[in-house]
Amino acid sequence: MSRSPTATPSAGQTRVAFRLRVTLDQVIAIGPGKVQLLEAVRDTGSITAAAKSIGMSYRRAWLLLDELNGALKSPAIASAKGGTTGGATTLTDVGEQVIALYRHIERTAAEACAADMRRLLGLLRA
Amino acid sequence: MSRSPTATPSAGQTRVAFRLRVTLDQVIAIGPGKVQLLEAVRDTGSITAAAKSIGMSYRRAWLLLDELNGALKSPAIASAKGGTTGGATTLTDVGEQVIALYRHIERTAAEACAADMRRLLGLLRA
Repeated sequence: MSRSPTATPSAGQTRVAFRLRVTLDQVIAIGPGKVQLLEAVRDTGSITAAAKSIGMSYRRAWLLLDELNGALKSPAIASAKGGTTGGATTLTDVGEQVIALYRHIERTAAEACAADMRRLLGLLRA
Repeated sequence: MSRSPTATPSAGQTRVAFRLRVTLDQVIAIGPGKVQLLEAVRDTGSITAAAKSIGMSYRRAWLLLDELNGALKSPAIASAKGGTTGGATTLTDVGEQVIALYRHIERTAAEACAADMRRLLGLLRA
C-alpha cells in the first residue's frame, strides 16, 4: 500500500494510519512513539543521537525507554560503560523483537483490511 | 478476543488497542472519536443526547459531525425540521456505512494479528 501507516502526512493527501497501542495499567507500554524511538536507538547506537534524530528531548527519550523497559520482562536496550548519558546503547533481542512484532502487526493489519479501507476511502471527497 | 479495541481501560489490565485514523488534508476525517459520536447519534436520535451520552459538549459534537460531513462525498447524518439544535438527527446510509466499515476494519485487524499480538504481550510483565 502506498498509504503506509508510517508515512508523514502532507497537505492534500489522504492517509490511513493504523496505530497500535499496548496499554498496561493505563500506561501505554508499547506504542508508535516508543517503537519509533527504539528504531532510532538501533539506527544511531545512542539515546542522545536517537532523541535528536526524531526531534525529542534526551530527557523524554530516556523516560520513554525507562517506561518501556519497566513494562517488559527483560529490557529492550543495553547501555555500555559510560551509562545512559554517555555510552553506546544497543538493542537487546527483546528490543529487536518488539520492533519486529510491532511493525509486522501494522503491515498485517493494513493488508488484511485493504479492501474495507478502500471502501471507507471511497466515501470521502476525492 | 477479550482485549477489545473498544474496551474501557482499567487498572491492572493489559489492553491492546488498534486505532484507525483516516487523515484528509492533515485533519482526522474518520477516527475513533467521530465513529463513537456517530454511533451515539444513531443510538439516541439527537446530537444533544449523543453528546451528553459520551460526555462531550454539544458544540464539540456539532463541530466533529460538521467536519465529518465535510470530508464525505455525502453527509453521514440528516437532521429533521428544527435544525441541528432541536430536531431529531438520524444517520444516512453513508453514516451507517462509515460505522460498519470502521468497526469491521478494527475487528479484521485484531483477528489477523492475534498471534503476533499474543507474542508481543508475551514480552510484557504479567
